[in-house]
Amino acid sequence: MKKIAILGSTGSIGTQTLEVVRENGDIEVLGLAAGSNISLLEEQIREFQPKLVAVWDEKKAAELKIKVQDLDVKIVTGMDGLIEVSVMEEVEILLTAVVGMIGIRPTVEAIKAGKDIALANKETLVTAGHIIMPLAKEMGVSILPVDSEHSAIFQSLQGNKMNSIHKILLTASGGPFRGKKQEDLLNIQVEDALKHPNWAMGRKITIDSSTMVNKGLEVIEAKWLFGVEVDKVQVVVQPQSVIHSMVEYEDGAIIAQLGTPDMKLPIQYALYYPKRRYLPGDRLDFWRMGKLDFEKPDMDTFYGLALAYEAGRTGGSLPTVFNAANEMAVGQFLNREIKYLEIIEIIEDCMRAHKNIENPTLDQILETEAETYARIKSRR
Amino acid sequence: MKKIAILGSTGSIGTQTLEVVRENGDIEVLGLAAGSNISLLEEQIREFQPKLVAVWDEKKAAELKIKVQDLDVKIVTGMDGLIEVSVMEEVEILLTAVVGMIGIRPTVEAIKAGKDIALANKETLVTAGHIIMPLAKEMGVSILPVDSEHSAIFQSLQGNKMNSIHKILLTASGGPFRGKKQEDLLNIQVEDALKHPNWAMGRKITIDSSTMVNKGLEVIEAKWLFGVEVDKVQVVVQPQSVIHSMVEYEDGAIIAQLGTPDMKLPIQYALYYPKRRYLPGDRLDFWRMGKLDFEKPDMDTFYGLALAYEAGRTGGSLPTVFNAANEMAVGQFLNREIKYLEIIEIIEDCMRAHKNIENPTLDQILETEAETYARIKSRR
Repeated sequence: MKKIAILGSTGSIGTQTLEVVRENGDIEVLGLAAGSNISLLEEQIREFQPKLVAVWDEKKAAELKIKVQDLDVKIVTGMDGLIEVSVMEEVEILLTAVVGMIGIRPTVEAIKAGKDIALANKETLVTAGHIIMPLAKEMGVSILPVDSEHSAIFQSLQGNKMNSIHKILLTASGGPFRGKKQEDLLNIQVEDALKHPNWAMGRKITIDSSTMVNKGLEVIEAKWLFGVEVDKVQVVVQPQSVIHSMVEYEDGAIIAQLGTPDMKLPIQYALYYPKRRYLPGDRLDFWRMGKLDFEKPDMDTFYGLALAYEAGRTGGSLPTVFNAANEMAVGQFLNREIKYLEIIEIIEDCMRAHKNIENPTLDQILETEAETYARIKSRR
Repeated sequence: MKKIAILGSTGSIGTQTLEVVRENGDIEVLGLAAGSNISLLEEQIREFQPKLVAVWDEKKAAELKIKVQDLDVKIVTGMDGLIEVSVMEEVEILLTAVVGMIGIRPTVEAIKAGKDIALANKETLVTAGHIIMPLAKEMGVSILPVDSEHSAIFQSLQGNKMNSIHKILLTASGGPFRGKKQEDLLNIQVEDALKHPNWAMGRKITIDSSTMVNKGLEVIEAKWLFGVEVDKVQVVVQPQSVIHSMVEYEDGAIIAQLGTPDMKLPIQYALYYPKRRYLPGDRLDFWRMGKLDFEKPDMDTFYGLALAYEAGRTGGSLPTVFNAANEMAVGQFLNREIKYLEIIEIIEDCMRAHKNIENPTLDQILETEAETYARIKSRR
């Protein structure tokens, strides 16, 4: 029995991870952590019987404690609780699928405790890749990517340990506004931006996908995961989301991973790596596929992607600014406090105002985040 | 210095192999073998200074001997000569790119002598896969595919040793007559059939490509190389020849190898496997690619492909009949002795008339070939 813990168990990735666990029947879930959705969390506890559960919201944690008092489970709360789940003694793999920079500290502690990390939290590497990757190397733990693109790259790198990456081709659906220009995006409403053509995901990541900021975060993440400069990561728009990403080698050969859009594939691949297992679901049918399209991303309209390259190229604390500014701006957009295009304006304003720190510590990263939030709040 | 010998050095694959050798500068060519093109062979001898050279044609061998009498090279001839080159003591890899069943015996002898085989000769596995593959396993030698499709499959299998193949997706350009129906092919001339849209290849293989018999041979070859039933090999028409083939795994993930059409890539990959090296040449540009198309092959029009599946499924000596009948029929077509569609009629007639031998020995394979030739000769 493989032993895992899941941070963010009630979210999109978390619930799909538990589906994978359910379908395979040979993984033991020792720990769960979630934000506030304690009714779903209670169901998960009753089904998977973890020993330890963290709830971010203190009040909700107290409520949950009462709900599950018939069970042998310890309920913890806050950052201390998250970390307690992350370092549980018997856990082999920590799957971290919390949204936002909250995921960084638990990940660092889990690596220090020698856990392999199945990473679905982008912010961790985007903001602290320079801390995480050397630490993982030092501790001899694996960082296994759990999103479609980075898993595809990871899969395309297998059997090529001795071969250097010439280029990473990071595919993008282009989102719901592909082909549109700035002027078409002036009056985009929350409902429009939440319609993703191919993937069912959480709200924040769906907005990020529509602005291509998500792809920008992935570019920076790829830099850390695969040890390449951001300018070796080329974004290729592939609207059907069939090619999940590719690696080009020195000899010109490109290895790609393709499939139907199903997050359970990268989740399962990370949990059982390097073994693949049967996964129920649709298969690609090339006889019916017709065609695959390829486009260059429009970085004038989707200027957030250009800003991401700038942040990734510069490094230091600038990617934290990029990420934090986006996080808050998207929140404000979802609350209908700002207009759609302001998301990117806010990111750029924050980046221009920031004095970069070259090799930020974890504390400096968190300070940069707080400063960025404060800057946005003072904006209006 | 890696030490190799090349069978078929004056052909398309042979000359490209020597280009790869020239560009890398760290491979020693100890032996060469060719059919009759001794003027090119002389150039090759002067440049690469092999110790041993086989010429199939006895008279040409005698002529060559005189031409190169100033050099320290031994000239041999016939099948004995071919085999002598194949088993040269210091050779590590034998690249076999002769056309036709003539390649089988040298390959068997090379395997027995412990050489790794870089295999560009399809007929070897198509007709004698049941002998070659177990022998290679027994001797612990690698069979490294040197054609675009099987190399792509081989590359897509790297890092998946513990994973079983669910399906092989063997791509096909569809050739110059893609989209045509039987009635459109009634009056095809040699010149029409020699125009391949994507690849510059020898004459015989170009005709095979136009009839899709080449793809059929590749299906049977894939069966042996990768240990799958032919019905797990699905032919996908991909007219741009950008995806060179794919492997689908149990989890639904598909790994593909893509690239520009350049035979030097699979050649170089086989010679340096598993290391990749820089290879000069064009690179794929996905920003300009536009689209890739996919189609189901038309097995009614290109009935030779259906016959190949039948031969591969049945096994025994039937694939030899399929191959030998095609070899002779294509020769007759190139000599303008028969019409284009008769190629496939002849293959079918020979297959129907053949009494299958389940586990043919090498001698029985060669007898089957001779019988098939005799049957075709008696046809008119």
